[in-house]
Order: sequence, then structure tokens, then C-alpha cells
Amino acid sequence: MILTLTPNPAVDLTWRVDALGVGETHRADAAAVRAGGKGLNVARVAHAQGATVLAVTTAGGRTGDELSTELAASGVPHRVVPVGGATRRSIAIVDTQRGDTTVVNERGVNPTDPEWAAVFGEVVDALPGARVLVVSGSLPPGTPATLVPLLIGVARDARIPVIVDTSGPALLRAAEAGATVLKPNAAELAEATGLDDPVAGARTLIALGARLVLVSLGPDGLLAVTASGVRRARLEAPLSGNPTGAGDAAVAASAVLLAEGVDDPDLILRRAAAWSAAAVLMPLAGEISDDWPALEKRLIVTDALTDPTLREDPS
Amino acid sequence: MILTLTPNPAVDLTWRVDALGVGETHRADAAAVRAGGKGLNVARVAHAQGATVLAVTTAGGRTGDELSTELAASGVPHRVVPVGGATRRSIAIVDTQRGDTTVVNERGVNPTDPEWAAVFGEVVDALPGARVLVVSGSLPPGTPATLVPLLIGVARDARIPVIVDTSGPALLRAAEAGATVLKPNAAELAEATGLDDPVAGARTLIALGARLVLVSLGPDGLLAVTASGVRRARLEAPLSGNPTGAGDAAVAASAVLLAEGVDDPDLILRRAAAWSAAAVLMPLAGEISDDWPALEKRLIVTDALTDPTLREDPS
Repeated sequence: MILTLTPNPAVDLTWRVDALGVGETHRADAAAVRAGGKGLNVARVAHAQGATVLAVTTAGGRTGDELSTELAASGVPHRVVPVGGATRRSIAIVDTQRGDTTVVNERGVNPTDPEWAAVFGEVVDALPGARVLVVSGSLPPGTPATLVPLLIGVARDARIPVIVDTSGPALLRAAEAGATVLKPNAAELAEATGLDDPVAGARTLIALGARLVLVSLGPDGLLAVTASGVRRARLEAPLSGNPTGAGDAAVAASAVLLAEGVDDPDLILRRAAAWSAAAVLMPLAGEISDDWPALEKRLIVTDALTDPTLREDPS
Repeated sequence: MILTLTPNPAVDLTWRVDALGVGETHRADAAAVRAGGKGLNVARVAHAQGATVLAVTTAGGRTGDELSTELAASGVPHRVVPVGGATRRSIAIVDTQRGDTTVVNERGVNPTDPEWAAVFGEVVDALPGARVLVVSGSLPPGTPATLVPLLIGVARDARIPVIVDTSGPALLRAAEAGATVLKPNAAELAEATGLDDPVAGARTLIALGARLVLVSLGPDGLLAVTASGVRRARLEAPLSGNPTGAGDAAVAASAVLLAEGVDDPDLILRRAAAWSAAAVLMPLAGEISDDWPALEKRLIVTDALTDPTLREDPS
């Protein structure tokens, strides 16, 4: 079973407008409402691909009721820890003419210490049945610095691999605690390590203790960095579509392989890059196209340090 | 008592961000949540100024629960008609650097015929205690064309003046049905009548049967058009602030005076212009500054047809 924890879930509200103008007033149909947060998207993708999953998250307030209702309707097995603070909202306004999306993410409310203890307890209770633990998404401001290292610690003690997809200081702490896989995007990696070069940033995380760092480079593909090498997977030409949730699909792919006992970084890189590309083809985060096997075949995988396209100055 | 009907209420969600960029991702604190819709704002302003009010509206779904909770907390006397369709959301993203606001208004769900009958029944039940009826805000798509004329008809039969602030064909039908006061803004008036000149547009509504047309011109003040004249009230220099709800404050002023038996168009114009300006000074719609008497004294009221500033091409 793939056990995912979403420490800072959100009610995702999405509106579609003709042409978004700053300072202007627009008409729209009712928002699409979805239980959001990276760990929930990971669970949705893995569940849709036939994996056994359990999604653990929190819910509070009226928005928490909305989240729980939508999560129940999704069919993804889950456990919701009730919290006092209202679940945050995340809003997206899709401009149907230009095709871009403007996003406002609320920061979220930090659970109390007893609420965090209940979250931790749900994870510990579920660990005996888990083959991999995924901790994915932002942390509410004020989250105890010990939370992610503790989660990694209990999973490692149970010999269960841990994938962490987060940002900021928690990313460094996850590396130090010995996470199996980290999956920052290039901007998150640069912000956390202070290094603009993704290879150098990923190597910092490896030096701290992470086993494999997958760096999403957006249309430029996916980088896999281990202590022994740097590989990159990409398509000849980037796909056009909706990149929201592409990173979550990469995490889901990694989780499915690790749960099957596959820990070859090259296989993980290929599957993660294929599912990531297959997510771009779908309108909503948490879904991937059934065409992913064809995409996986089309991937160009290179030794990144000798790949001339990675050496180009992206600016 | 001032009886207001809000046929298409909304849960207003407002976020504040540093600099809104189309296609970008932003972080924000939790949204401010408010029961919104023009008629509710009118009731808030009149209630805060000491008038007796009753606000009638609908609520449905989880968003309807939010609306009802917030309305109860506001202290404004109200009756909520339960409906099956979920209450719409209206979202505002305030750019704290530039000071502008980007708005997305959901269109709303049309109540069923029995639900509209219940709304109509609430208004009819409350009419004997009312001194003025205010019908304010948009109508859900598909609203029966007869609704606004019927409301005006029952109020006129009871010798109760009616103020209507809406747009589109309903504005023309309200004029035909003999509304006492209509309050379109310049854009709504141009759209409904097909005439770009606000004086010509307002005269069309007068010719159809309206008694007084107040046209909000934004920073250029307020126009009052009757069968016998065209007057305009403005400040020497426009105030800077939040114009959202300025039109609702103008309607509230008109309602308070009509409820007191004052129907002199010049007095209504002055008070409406003063409350409208006083609303610009407040951060939220549905509130006006206590300084409105000073603003009223500073108003410049002119015969609009000889006012050279109105003759200027605004483009």
C-alpha cells in the first residue's frame, strides 16, 4: 500500500474566464470544487493506475467539510484527521483564451500540537501495511520543524522508503533525515539550497543524506541525481497542456515503483518522466493520460553532465 | 421599514496579494468571507445608519450555509428562502501594491418556479410593514422575465415606492413597470438602452415609465434624470479608495429618504452622492464613512445639460 500524507490540504476552486484582466470584473460559471493538495493528487494518480493507496490528511471548518465530501466522492481510500483550523482554499482562474492559469494559494492554518500528534498517529498506525510513505505538499506556517524528520525516522525504522515533495527548510531537513526520494522543482531547489544550478542543488541534498533527487525542470524534463550520477529524461519537444500536477504524477510513479520493490534510479526516472508528461495532457491535477506507455518509449534519457541542452544558459 | 430583495446573493471571498500577475502563483492569507450581493449591501448601509431594514434573499448548498452564517453574524434583520441550487461565489483579489481589485462573479443558479414563488411570498408578506422596496443586484440566468415587474406591481398597488438596481433587459422592464428609482451605472445603462450618452439613456428609461434615474458615473459623480430635468452632483476632486459598494450606498440613501417620505429628486441626488462618496472611503462594500455630512456639504450640484465637464468627451 502507498501511504500518502498531505499536511496542508486545500479546497481547490477553479474558475474559467474568457480573458483575465487585472483590475477588471469577469463573469464565470460556478467554480469546480476539488479536494486538493499534492499528496492527495499523488494518491489519486496511483489509485487510478491500480495501486493500493491510503491518503491521510486533515480537515477543519466549512472548507474541511467540502474537502471531506469531495474526497469521499473521489473513491480514494483516506483517513481525515479533524482539526480546529479551517482547511485552506487554493484558487485557480483559467484564462481560456491565453490558456494560462492564475493561482492564489492560502498559506493554511497550523494544526495544534495534539492535532499534529493525531496526524502522526494515523501515519504510524498505517505504516505496517505500507510499502512506501509519501509526504507531499507545503507545510502550514509554524509546522514543527521535527515533523518531517520524525515521519522519515519512523518509516526508516520500519524499512519503508520515504518520498518527500516539499520546499523551504523542510526540504533540507528531509534530506538530512535520509529521505529515499526528494522531488523539488528547480525553483524550490534553488530557494532551499541557495544554488541556481539544479545539479549542484541536488548534490547538496544528496550530501545531506537523500538517496535520489528528482528535479522537475518543467518543459525541459526531469533530472535524477544520485551519489553516483546525473541523468535526465525529456521528450524531444515539450507537450502543451496543463502542467499543474505533473510533479505529483512523477511522485506517484516513484511511489508505485518503490512499493513494487523497484529502486533502480533509471527506471524511476523514466516512469516518473512519463507519468509527468502524461499529466500535462490532462485538464486536472491528479490525473494522467492512458498514453503514458507510449510517452515512456519516446523519452530521451541522457547523462545530464554531457547533455549539451542542459549546459545552455536558460536565461 | 426598508425591505430589500437580493435575488442573486453571493458568498464574497476576498484575498489580498502583493502583486497580482496573470499566469502566476501567489501566496495569501485566508480569504475574508462575507454575505454579498447588492441588496444585502444596501441593507447593511441603511441598518448601520439607524434605519429599520429587512433583507430578503435565498441560500442553497454549502455556500448558502456560509452566507446564512455570515448574515446572522452581521446583525442585519433578514429572511432567507432555502433553495436547492448552491449560492454563487464572488471572488475579489486585491493587489495591495497597485490598489486595484480583480473580480470574478459567478453567474448564479436560477431558483425553481416554486422557489421564486416562495421569494415572492416573503416580499408580499413583508410589504405591509415596508415604506420602500429595494430590488438590487443581478438576476440568475433564466430568471422569469415577469419577476421584477410583478414585484414592482405589488409594491405600487400597496403605494410603496420601489428602487431597482439591476442591469440588462430587467432594467428596461423595471422602467416599463413604473419603478420609482432606477440606479444603473453608465456602462449598464449603455448596454441596456444601446445609447452611449447617459442622459439619453436615462431619458429612455423615464420615457418607459421610471420616475427618477440615478446614473453613477464613478469618479465623475452621480446624475439624476427626471421628466423635468437633469442634475449632477460631484466632488471637486474624486476621492481615492474602494469604489465597490458605492452604488449600493447611493441606493441605501435613496431608500432611507423615500422611507421617510422625502421624494424631492434634488435631495435624493445629494444624499445618494454623499453616501456614495462616503462608501469609497471604506475598505468593504456595505459600509460608509461617518464623514458623509461633510462630504454632502462639499458637493457641487449643477444642471447637467449646462455643465461643461459633462460635455467633455470622456475618451
